[in-house]
Amino acid sequence: MANDTIIFGIYPVEEALKKSSIDKVFIQQGTVNDKIQNIIQQLDKYNVSIQYVPIEKLNRLTRGNHQGIIAFTTPIKVYSLEDVVENLIKDKQNPLLLILDQISDVRNFGAILRTAECTGIDAIIIPKMGAAPITGDAVKTSAGALYNLPIIKVDHVKDAVFYLQGSGIEVIAATEKTNDSIYSKDLTGPLAIIMGSEGKGISNSVLSVVDQKASLPLLGEINSLNVSVACGAILYEAVRQRLKL
Amino acid sequence: MANDTIIFGIYPVEEALKKSSIDKVFIQQGTVNDKIQNIIQQLDKYNVSIQYVPIEKLNRLTRGNHQGIIAFTTPIKVYSLEDVVENLIKDKQNPLLLILDQISDVRNFGAILRTAECTGIDAIIIPKMGAAPITGDAVKTSAGALYNLPIIKVDHVKDAVFYLQGSGIEVIAATEKTNDSIYSKDLTGPLAIIMGSEGKGISNSVLSVVDQKASLPLLGEINSLNVSVACGAILYEAVRQRLKL
Repeated sequence: MANDTIIFGIYPVEEALKKSSIDKVFIQQGTVNDKIQNIIQQLDKYNVSIQYVPIEKLNRLTRGNHQGIIAFTTPIKVYSLEDVVENLIKDKQNPLLLILDQISDVRNFGAILRTAECTGIDAIIIPKMGAAPITGDAVKTSAGALYNLPIIKVDHVKDAVFYLQGSGIEVIAATEKTNDSIYSKDLTGPLAIIMGSEGKGISNSVLSVVDQKASLPLLGEINSLNVSVACGAILYEAVRQRLKL
Repeated sequence: MANDTIIFGIYPVEEALKKSSIDKVFIQQGTVNDKIQNIIQQLDKYNVSIQYVPIEKLNRLTRGNHQGIIAFTTPIKVYSLEDVVENLIKDKQNPLLLILDQISDVRNFGAILRTAECTGIDAIIIPKMGAAPITGDAVKTSAGALYNLPIIKVDHVKDAVFYLQGSGIEVIAATEKTNDSIYSKDLTGPLAIIMGSEGKGISNSVLSVVDQKASLPLLGEINSLNVSVACGAILYEAVRQRLKL
């Protein structure tokens, strides 16, 4: 990781936290400090990953006075699911969210973010672990879309599905494991669409809790679309229906 | 280029020609040979690129008896525009073709081929020069779609547009240089859709001769879709209209 994405010391990390731009934090094992405890509480709220490491590891990462804490920043803002959904329900009649379940390829992730921005998606939900890292490459492939889109990191996609459903947002899984066509679905209401990884698709535990499943018609023999292409076709169908085109 | 894609000698090249699987040919400068002349005539028909090179270059490429000719094979079949269009008009009421103008990124090319196969495209037209090379990588990214799809190489995309129009096939350019939405177009008749490169889009000389231009609605600020995503959204709109979904 390039040096310019590292910040260290209590005050700089507190400042970065205000901008919600921290991807991961290393904290010195055994540190007892009220300010660091306060930072940890805020990191938890944003689902930022925390690792407790020996002081030697921190010393290797920086020669500066790290005060027992080093943060890796991300160029994008990360939001909490609760905050975003609360605001969306207040502000928008029919929010449209995208959930990415284990999409680990950076280029696909970037292309999907571009599509999401171009189709007016309100927020993207990704799992804290197993998703493509939000690096400079992801920002580049996304053509800047990452800066415009709220990204929500969650511990478990399944819990996010429950939360959305509880907030009146329907959850549709894009999966080949159904004969229902996406074109037979009403995509105009409050909606979250889940796309799965190319290799494994959406995990079965998530599939078992969604409201609906929908597939794209496959007219050839290979039955294998690139996930960012499939996502584009589905999101544009939502756009077509929502704009009544 | 890996050795296994090289074949040399008159008879092996003649055999490969029967399978239409040659991407490029090197012929020894000054060679006078009826069989080689015959091969050249056939190569011209399929728009295979021919380069006349010094014997030393051929000797460096193989230690075998090349007889003045070395061919680089491609894993896919390459067809002539005239043959494909003639058959399509005879066999299908409403053929659907895809023209790729200068799409040079192998991963985008592969993803587009997968989409084309999954949406039942009848043939892909690419320019002889400037297109992504049809290598093992392209085959891999295309998930095997390359084996199922007729690929047509043409000298100039513009001439192909004229030929298609003369055969009663409408040509629509996917371009941001129009306010016409793709959703306002009838995509159910005999049709060819042109996608341009991400950097430059469709060349102006081609844009000036198409029947119609159409764009996807862009609801964000970055106004920049990945070309394979845009292609997927457009081809699936054609599928939706054609299947009356």
